[in-house]
Amino acid sequence: MSSIVSVDTRDIRFPTSLELDGSDAMNPDPDYSAAYVIIRTDAADGHAGHGFVFTIGRGNDVQVAALDALRGHLLGRNVEELLGDMAATWRLLGHDSQLRWLGPEKGVMHMAIGAVVNALWDLRAKRAGLPLWQLLSSLPPEELVSLVDFRYLSDAITPAEALALFRAAEPHRAERVAQLLATGYPAYTTTPGWLGYSDEKLERLCREAVADGFPQIKLKVGADLADDRRRLGIARAAVGPDFPIAIDANQRWDIGAAIGWVNALAEFDPAWIEEPTSPDDILGHAAIARGIAPVRVATGEHVQNRIVFKQLLQAGGMDVMQIDATRVGGVNENIANLLLAAKFGVPVCPHAGGVGLCEAVQHLSMFDFVALSGTMDGRMIEYVDHLHEHFVTPVVVERGRYLAPTTPGAGTEMLARSIDDHTWRGSHAEQVRA
Amino acid sequence: MSSIVSVDTRDIRFPTSLELDGSDAMNPDPDYSAAYVIIRTDAADGHAGHGFVFTIGRGNDVQVAALDALRGHLLGRNVEELLGDMAATWRLLGHDSQLRWLGPEKGVMHMAIGAVVNALWDLRAKRAGLPLWQLLSSLPPEELVSLVDFRYLSDAITPAEALALFRAAEPHRAERVAQLLATGYPAYTTTPGWLGYSDEKLERLCREAVADGFPQIKLKVGADLADDRRRLGIARAAVGPDFPIAIDANQRWDIGAAIGWVNALAEFDPAWIEEPTSPDDILGHAAIARGIAPVRVATGEHVQNRIVFKQLLQAGGMDVMQIDATRVGGVNENIANLLLAAKFGVPVCPHAGGVGLCEAVQHLSMFDFVALSGTMDGRMIEYVDHLHEHFVTPVVVERGRYLAPTTPGAGTEMLARSIDDHTWRGSHAEQVRA
Repeated sequence: MSSIVSVDTRDIRFPTSLELDGSDAMNPDPDYSAAYVIIRTDAADGHAGHGFVFTIGRGNDVQVAALDALRGHLLGRNVEELLGDMAATWRLLGHDSQLRWLGPEKGVMHMAIGAVVNALWDLRAKRAGLPLWQLLSSLPPEELVSLVDFRYLSDAITPAEALALFRAAEPHRAERVAQLLATGYPAYTTTPGWLGYSDEKLERLCREAVADGFPQIKLKVGADLADDRRRLGIARAAVGPDFPIAIDANQRWDIGAAIGWVNALAEFDPAWIEEPTSPDDILGHAAIARGIAPVRVATGEHVQNRIVFKQLLQAGGMDVMQIDATRVGGVNENIANLLLAAKFGVPVCPHAGGVGLCEAVQHLSMFDFVALSGTMDGRMIEYVDHLHEHFVTPVVVERGRYLAPTTPGAGTEMLARSIDDHTWRGSHAEQVRA
Repeated sequence: MSSIVSVDTRDIRFPTSLELDGSDAMNPDPDYSAAYVIIRTDAADGHAGHGFVFTIGRGNDVQVAALDALRGHLLGRNVEELLGDMAATWRLLGHDSQLRWLGPEKGVMHMAIGAVVNALWDLRAKRAGLPLWQLLSSLPPEELVSLVDFRYLSDAITPAEALALFRAAEPHRAERVAQLLATGYPAYTTTPGWLGYSDEKLERLCREAVADGFPQIKLKVGADLADDRRRLGIARAAVGPDFPIAIDANQRWDIGAAIGWVNALAEFDPAWIEEPTSPDDILGHAAIARGIAPVRVATGEHVQNRIVFKQLLQAGGMDVMQIDATRVGGVNENIANLLLAAKFGVPVCPHAGGVGLCEAVQHLSMFDFVALSGTMDGRMIEYVDHLHEHFVTPVVVERGRYLAPTTPGAGTEMLARSIDDHTWRGSHAEQVRA
């Protein structure tokens, strides 16, 4: 029997805007940041649960305040009870009616709940001596179904349907675990495609991506059509005619503009258009999908919760689901998202990059392969080579594939020194640029 | 020429859960609260802008942190520039790409931006010596259109269409101002209908509402069908067969449950069903509207932004739009919402109650009447008689009508003593109930 004795939070920021890493049409100067939480117990094992919300700078302090607001739900709690019934733990946090008012189930407060849920999963995986993907893949189908909050989902998927999906995959779990450990999971790279890079850097990075074995690259678009056509031409020439190039507009367009712009890039054969418009515009995504077919629509990194994912699928507005490890209510809600994708037959290609998103989200894709979808066809996890050196178990990507992590935990723990070195001590006024 | 010299924030909470005021199917024990901001300048007039976000207790501190995060955008700014171009001021706050990541345009950060925008409108109205509704109703149609961020709206309404709507109303402004000042704006009351009240209290308050001249009452439903049938029966008997009774489920149901439950209450002839399901479920609202017609669907108090309002209208999921003064990005975004309602021909019946929501939102309905929709037919502002005594210019509701406020400002200023007396100094751990 052990109890939670501390919930430490940190405001961690990296000055990435100085190099224009991560620059796109909507986010010209991100400072990659993490609102970070460490949950410690009085158990003799010394394990702590680590979780975080990825942000891009200003406002990371607000996200930390939201983590702080959850402390009262955690301090002094029995750890075995919390970890042994993560369905009840989700309800404890996600169904707090007063906190729910701040969303509901969206934005700063919802992401904070997700970070705490993820930190508890990290702790549970460490205690189990398993990487999170393997822990989840070892749970009975009944427990997996219980983790999902089906409120507002029952018109799209029921617990019975979810159970049938997990049960159908169960006999194949062992062989798929072996396959993952042997050959890993496909990755695609966004490294070449940031808007702030020169044409020469773009071309060089495209060639390097192909040489490194990645099966797909992604380019940011949406700031200027002539630039996009020039950059896509450079990229297409560099990678050859049959190599997939995804494009990403980061919510830059209205509906009509999206359809026109993507059709004006169709000759470069984009693999998908990502975030063509507001992540809230379900009907808009559906209209865009109709207007640009056969080019596919991908979205998800800013989709606030399972309810919006559900509708994007129901409306035919999302051909590729891009879950994000820290945007929604944690592992539990992402299991709901994976179930929706499986039900609707849509591939999941997670959003990653930022701070620690690759480390975290790989566990969800690998779990999905082993215990749910059972396939890697058309599936890839985004890969960006930023900031991995700050994590205790950084991702290993070789020849275009994520190698399956074997270290216990959820991959969400930063190095103690990195946490200390990058804890932000500035002021709000200082950080607003003139 | 003057500058902003301070942006003070306060965490204000009222222990309303002790009396079960405000209790409903999703919010059993709200502690009505306000994350409050005061913007002071060095001008000789001594005017300050007051704004707030309404919350229901825990997490109000997170909302205050979000207000604090905006201080850097405001301190030292030229006041005349900010107030003279509120379109640019909205973009300064709403288009901060780093803060936008925390939503985008939803939840804690978006509501904080709304509170600051509203505080600046309060300041502008005080400087103009006009109540906000009259200030807005005096602006040229071109300026009103410029206040709206049409990003993600152009498939539903264009600036040219918005301009035409404002211009069509312009010749009638003076007569409508006179009409408002003479006879006010209709109100309906939710006071009888909280779930925590006894049957006797329900019946008494229903009779009082009719006697007081209100044209409609509203009852909370959704916790227990047998209770709802009993309570609606009591209310219907108390008010008579032709008096409108709206019902409000506060997001309690999934789609199928909503349709079944409302149809099981149809014999009591509900005027509308409010928030039957998640405010994020646009397709769900449309399915419910089809499944319960002719009962109307009302929603909006938790609708995160104009993009979701747009889709609810496009999908046929909202027969009554319930704007809220502090849920979205302030006056500017609510003008977008009013324009959408006018374009789609849907009546606006604002959400109010809470802390100061009546005081704030009446200005928007009155502006809508004078300068946009031009009608009060089927329009009513919610009224709840809680906590008005804490405001400098409390609403005046007589014979079921809001009297048009004549005091300069946006109605958002609390009494200095109330602010001090109700500033919360508790801790997170204390506030989590066992």
